[in-house]
Amino acid sequence: MNDALAYAQSHADTFVDQLSDWLRIPSISTDPEYNADTRRAADWLADDLRRIGVQKVEVMETGGHPIVYAEHYIGDDKPTVLVYGHYDVQPPDPLDLWHSPPFEPVIKDGDIIARGSADDKGQAFMHVKSVEAYLQSGTDLPVNLKMMIEGEEESGSVHLAPFIENNKDLLAADVVLVSDTSLFAPGVPSIAYGLRGLAYVEVELTGPSKDLHSGVYGGGVENPINALARMIADLHDENHHITVEGFYDNVRDLTDEEREAYKALPFDLEAWMEEAGVKATKSEAGYTALEGTSGRPTLDVNGIWGGYTGKGAKTVLPSKATAKISCRLVPDQGPEEITAKLRRHFEQHVPDTMTLDFRDLHGGHGAIVDTSAPAMQAAADALEGVFGQRPHFTREGGSIPVVADFKKILGLDTVLMGFGLDSDSIHSPNERFGLDRFHQGIEASIRFLDAYAKQEA
Amino acid sequence: MNDALAYAQSHADTFVDQLSDWLRIPSISTDPEYNADTRRAADWLADDLRRIGVQKVEVMETGGHPIVYAEHYIGDDKPTVLVYGHYDVQPPDPLDLWHSPPFEPVIKDGDIIARGSADDKGQAFMHVKSVEAYLQSGTDLPVNLKMMIEGEEESGSVHLAPFIENNKDLLAADVVLVSDTSLFAPGVPSIAYGLRGLAYVEVELTGPSKDLHSGVYGGGVENPINALARMIADLHDENHHITVEGFYDNVRDLTDEEREAYKALPFDLEAWMEEAGVKATKSEAGYTALEGTSGRPTLDVNGIWGGYTGKGAKTVLPSKATAKISCRLVPDQGPEEITAKLRRHFEQHVPDTMTLDFRDLHGGHGAIVDTSAPAMQAAADALEGVFGQRPHFTREGGSIPVVADFKKILGLDTVLMGFGLDSDSIHSPNERFGLDRFHQGIEASIRFLDAYAKQEA
Repeated sequence: MNDALAYAQSHADTFVDQLSDWLRIPSISTDPEYNADTRRAADWLADDLRRIGVQKVEVMETGGHPIVYAEHYIGDDKPTVLVYGHYDVQPPDPLDLWHSPPFEPVIKDGDIIARGSADDKGQAFMHVKSVEAYLQSGTDLPVNLKMMIEGEEESGSVHLAPFIENNKDLLAADVVLVSDTSLFAPGVPSIAYGLRGLAYVEVELTGPSKDLHSGVYGGGVENPINALARMIADLHDENHHITVEGFYDNVRDLTDEEREAYKALPFDLEAWMEEAGVKATKSEAGYTALEGTSGRPTLDVNGIWGGYTGKGAKTVLPSKATAKISCRLVPDQGPEEITAKLRRHFEQHVPDTMTLDFRDLHGGHGAIVDTSAPAMQAAADALEGVFGQRPHFTREGGSIPVVADFKKILGLDTVLMGFGLDSDSIHSPNERFGLDRFHQGIEASIRFLDAYAKQEA
Repeated sequence: MNDALAYAQSHADTFVDQLSDWLRIPSISTDPEYNADTRRAADWLADDLRRIGVQKVEVMETGGHPIVYAEHYIGDDKPTVLVYGHYDVQPPDPLDLWHSPPFEPVIKDGDIIARGSADDKGQAFMHVKSVEAYLQSGTDLPVNLKMMIEGEEESGSVHLAPFIENNKDLLAADVVLVSDTSLFAPGVPSIAYGLRGLAYVEVELTGPSKDLHSGVYGGGVENPINALARMIADLHDENHHITVEGFYDNVRDLTDEEREAYKALPFDLEAWMEEAGVKATKSEAGYTALEGTSGRPTLDVNGIWGGYTGKGAKTVLPSKATAKISCRLVPDQGPEEITAKLRRHFEQHVPDTMTLDFRDLHGGHGAIVDTSAPAMQAAADALEGVFGQRPHFTREGGSIPVVADFKKILGLDTVLMGFGLDSDSIHSPNERFGLDRFHQGIEASIRFLDAYAKQEA
């Protein structure tokens, strides 16, 4: 491993130059105008993997943008790590807010500024360079390695789950390694061991069969907006608990250890509130904002509409009111379970003046990985080696659907070892990635492969 | 009066032909492309008034579409009636739903079908023909008559109140007579003695200063849609009473006599529910739907919006949620009073996580006219003469802003003697007016002028 670390150190500038070349390819997966560029980014990566000596490299078709698959086999006595990442990027709009062209990487104040620098080319490339450091320094990889770098993450990963399903044997591994998340704070290493799931529904109430005049009918006919507001209000009690029957049945309560770990995090509440732009926090009674946003389930209205929404006054008593409502779930809540409970709740509480249309839009499972698992401890060892301190194990509030797919289809846990920061402006103008973090990530990847091999030995 | 009635009877067909001529002029006040036509409709009416021998007829400028003003003076010993109506019409869209061209009147099944036939050319013309019946049958008018027929009712009557304000002496009268409302039911004569007022506001809650990701922040930040829903829900209690402090302070309770009168109305609840397209009614506890829609104040959300309202699922925790909320008022509630009380309510109840923006959009006073007043009794006599039965005195749920203006600026009560029906499709394709009602309206107008002169004598 030390040779690999030395190689990485001596090739630091070369690695940045190579990343810059890759970032120059505008692989905007959502825009068909960039289809050729997106494929070019896949080919560029495959070429780099071949150049560094990976045994098997293939650009595999999916029906959409291709998946770059790579494999380097050492021996049956070694564990197998599957690295996942993506080479496609968000559209750069609005272009006029960029201080330099999004696909002409610029290095400024230690950051590389370009679309995709943090999300996810820069982070996926760390693992490619980690492999290069082993292979090109004449060191064998300590593990069997597989890589699956997709090109549709920013456009919904529509072909990914079928690809995994159709290539179970090819993708068989012991653990998945992903760098597409963030450090808890600058200089504060962290590994995410929990993700939330999602149950997303749309609820429409219809009162009168057509829009009515509020003067003529108001006072005799129930208004669907008022009725929907009441139904939404009733979804929480005064403790901000969700009132849907059985909602908490399968919630794994935070353990004492977990709550201690939350407390130990260097969390700056004031800064967090300023970033969110709020005057006060609001969580379930008995839980902090940090626990509420990652360790507990939620119910939020993501959108609502009904009646007249233009300028001025129109005295309509509308026929319909509609809301998009989603719940963030924690293990072991399931999206189907919670959607069914929401549906029953709405069906039972809809007033007799209203007709309910309840639509299931979308769902995904949360995930929790045992922090004592060998791969998690290996990741912790790797980050300790890089940062000189043991990382925090954290739970994240969002969902990463592919993590649930890995679990469901391949039976694999995922190690989320991300090096992003909230200030990286991913999905925004002037996306950036700190070069210090890029190099830390390469070192962490080198150390992880070594530590994981030892853990599993 | 009998000569006038005989004249009206013998000229029934001529009157319909004349109305048809007027209906052919597309006086769509809201569309500048029809400005010349709208003026042509005013000139046409003025010419007809001159032709029938009205002493003074003038097309008066307003800054918008002109007002047709007419005056016929009999003597200081006679009371003065001011007739109000409008010669402008709604746009005819959607054109493809008309079975005949909207400005080519067709007579079918006893109805005249054309845009403006009921609203309000047909009804305003009844009074013109009533005057003609007196003057052309060689009978003096029993009262002094003034007419003010405006051309902007369908585009907000923006120049009307200033016109009344600037012409107080010209418009001085004893009572206002308007036919722009409906009969209670086909063949059931009625006079509206009550109208509701309106207080219309817009309420916006801002939570986070920008849209947030519901995965990252959900559970630690209050959602403005959820908060607004709760505030809206809390505006009514379980009896559907409005909870705003002092809301009912100035409500004139329905008297026992009024509630008896409601009961006496030939009201078909099933038919009413079918027309509204509702499965069940919803009124303030202790009141019927009919009372609730006309004799009691209300609070309805006329529009609501916030967050993501497009197709599919977007996991936004929005910055803002906004609702348009209006109250129908009953005498003696005032729009300023109720708006102030609503404002105080929202200010007192807004959670500490939210910033409130409360905007006053619009307001208007309700009205109640003493049914024992001479003009009301004269109208009742007139309708009894036409229909052979005493009319019902009813309260209407909507607002007619000009009625409040007449009261406020000129100190005059308004007699609402309308001949429309809900089935007339005003503001919709295939607007129609029953010729039977057109002729009944002319007769009622003739009889009213006579009866009112006698009442005041």
